[in-house]
Amino acid sequence: MTIDEQVQYLRKGAIEIIREEELRGKLERSAKTGKPLRVKLGADPTAPDIHLGHTVVIRKLRAFQDLGHTAIFLIGDFTGLIGDPSGKTATRPQLTREEINANAETYKRQIFKLLDPDKTEIRFNSEWMQKLGSDGFIRLAAHITVKQILERDDFAKRLAEERPIALHELLYPLTQAYDSVALEADVELGGTDQKFNLLLGRNLQREYKQEAQVAVITPLLEGTDSVQKMSKSLGNYIGISEPPSEIFGKIMSISDDLMWRYYELLTDLTIDQIAALRGVADNGERNPRDIKAELAKKIVSDFHSDAEAQRAEEEFNRIFRNKQAPDEIEERIVAFGDRELRHLLVELGLASSNAEARELIKGGGVSLDGERCNLQTKYSISIRPGKPGHDIKVGKRRFVRVRGPK
Amino acid sequence: MTIDEQVQYLRKGAIEIIREEELRGKLERSAKTGKPLRVKLGADPTAPDIHLGHTVVIRKLRAFQDLGHTAIFLIGDFTGLIGDPSGKTATRPQLTREEINANAETYKRQIFKLLDPDKTEIRFNSEWMQKLGSDGFIRLAAHITVKQILERDDFAKRLAEERPIALHELLYPLTQAYDSVALEADVELGGTDQKFNLLLGRNLQREYKQEAQVAVITPLLEGTDSVQKMSKSLGNYIGISEPPSEIFGKIMSISDDLMWRYYELLTDLTIDQIAALRGVADNGERNPRDIKAELAKKIVSDFHSDAEAQRAEEEFNRIFRNKQAPDEIEERIVAFGDRELRHLLVELGLASSNAEARELIKGGGVSLDGERCNLQTKYSISIRPGKPGHDIKVGKRRFVRVRGPK
Repeated sequence: MTIDEQVQYLRKGAIEIIREEELRGKLERSAKTGKPLRVKLGADPTAPDIHLGHTVVIRKLRAFQDLGHTAIFLIGDFTGLIGDPSGKTATRPQLTREEINANAETYKRQIFKLLDPDKTEIRFNSEWMQKLGSDGFIRLAAHITVKQILERDDFAKRLAEERPIALHELLYPLTQAYDSVALEADVELGGTDQKFNLLLGRNLQREYKQEAQVAVITPLLEGTDSVQKMSKSLGNYIGISEPPSEIFGKIMSISDDLMWRYYELLTDLTIDQIAALRGVADNGERNPRDIKAELAKKIVSDFHSDAEAQRAEEEFNRIFRNKQAPDEIEERIVAFGDRELRHLLVELGLASSNAEARELIKGGGVSLDGERCNLQTKYSISIRPGKPGHDIKVGKRRFVRVRGPK
Repeated sequence: MTIDEQVQYLRKGAIEIIREEELRGKLERSAKTGKPLRVKLGADPTAPDIHLGHTVVIRKLRAFQDLGHTAIFLIGDFTGLIGDPSGKTATRPQLTREEINANAETYKRQIFKLLDPDKTEIRFNSEWMQKLGSDGFIRLAAHITVKQILERDDFAKRLAEERPIALHELLYPLTQAYDSVALEADVELGGTDQKFNLLLGRNLQREYKQEAQVAVITPLLEGTDSVQKMSKSLGNYIGISEPPSEIFGKIMSISDDLMWRYYELLTDLTIDQIAALRGVADNGERNPRDIKAELAKKIVSDFHSDAEAQRAEEEFNRIFRNKQAPDEIEERIVAFGDRELRHLLVELGLASSNAEARELIKGGGVSLDGERCNLQTKYSISIRPGKPGHDIKVGKRRFVRVRGPK
């Protein structure tokens, strides 16, 4: 690849590169000297359960690796060992060394499905942060101003709203920025929520007389609901450790629009290849559903294998597309009439209350006639004489065919 | 002494006690349990050259010691070892361990003229600050909010004026506050410029489930010019290591108003005793000059000895009061006429330029006929036929009698 092609390859799906001309310069120098770039991706030590949302930036790291550069997967164990000393952030629990090590192993098992272990450094920032000492920490803090750090969106907002900010909270972004100094990072990757921290890293490196890292900002991936950012707590996520049939089914449940975004952010297809696919879908040459199945297979292959992806597709087709029920099918008779989906779930004993039914739907665990249900749609199920019944699937195993009395 | 008398004794000369009822409670408990209070005074490791301005708060520490409590003289070596990493504050140079130890010895030599060495703990805050580590430091910072610390006057002012504040500057007051936690201080003493830090200590101790220290705030002492705070850089100071005759002479040069303030802040006389002295001065029963000489002797005694104080007075009287010149007298003849003092100094070769003459006067180094000169007065020296000459003293040794031609 020429440098131009490399830049184009790395730019795919990125929201912003600060600055692209610097990236070009670094790539050129690396090509000339043969010295690979050091590309940093920081990870929160508390959340080793990776979903597709996380893989956007991991794939970007892989892209650098594909071009021969060094991927550095940095586990922020130093902050993990401290936690939130004020006890106000539930998302920052204090972890033990053992928990962090266990999380690191879980991370490795997952990220090495995308990354090449031989070209990946796994690092822990306690290595240099603990050496720093309290005096070193103060010296570090001398390199930035209070104003610089209070400009971060969430701090600025909290200050404006007069909500308290504990002093130590200002120190965490500084820690992350110093990681780039310690690692002599050439590039740091991160989602849009990390932009401030990545730029602080650039400033701090300059303070330490290093060349500033290039910040490559990736977008946050929408979850299966097409609306909100993919997140475990919102229940709209696809975990990379989920079984093949689950991943396949969840991908099949997304909207066609979201499918193109997933193609861009979750596959190696080039922009041109994706545009071509879109063309044949738009002119009716191919059914979007088939293109979605292709995406689902690709993603299952990434985290399992081609064979398992194949099996997942066949299973999916057997159950949903061909409307053939699996072996465990159960037929249930209900009175004629129209019902909301959640009421029907309760009536069938598949949920113990409307609230639980709602949670099941919200969690993506309910399918109606082969389509995964979502909370946005109000599903009305008609049971009429002479009409076919409906297939309802709850969770992985429960499959019910419901119809009216004969 | 009753508790009431103790409180009154400790209150003398203090600007503010936060809070007096808490101090009373602590004194009562100490009397009951026999456990002395721990009274902290922090010292800057960069400036071991003590002048009378510093002794106001040291005398307050002595007052606690007189009542049986433990004086803790804390040398802030931790911050001294760091200095100002941003290099922007000249007043915070980075010191070596050796420099700090040398400064500590200089401190001891001076403060033990007022304090009882057997009842004084000399401590260094590196003892606990270095143990803290970078992680402990972050935990510490979690105990206060950004708002709390930005409320400090100088920070608030700089923020308002959009002048930069380096992040580490926020960490120094926190260090001082944590010293109180580490020392389990019952009382902390400090000048008005320390009020914020002392109150932060109270807050932090509560965070660490300790009883809050009482803050005893002492005033800043005016220098020999009666106007500005005593300070080495302003040249209006009286160093406690100066020779007896210098201290004596400088005290004799202060205004009568300032004399009463010095009586209050620099002697053990009670408020009532000072009021009585003031009474006899006001009704003409005693000459204020004699009362001033008494003050000068007391202060010389504090830092030298009674005998040296006596000798200093006699020497002063011999030279100035009785207009007898010392042995080193030098007579100089000048033309008749009136001259400004500074011009005369140049004429006599006692200063090389008007500017130097001005500096000498400003520095308090010039006396005219036994009175220390100041910049506020425009001294006109008349040399007239048949009139006596004038005595001019420059520095410690140079003494010139100037008169007209015979």
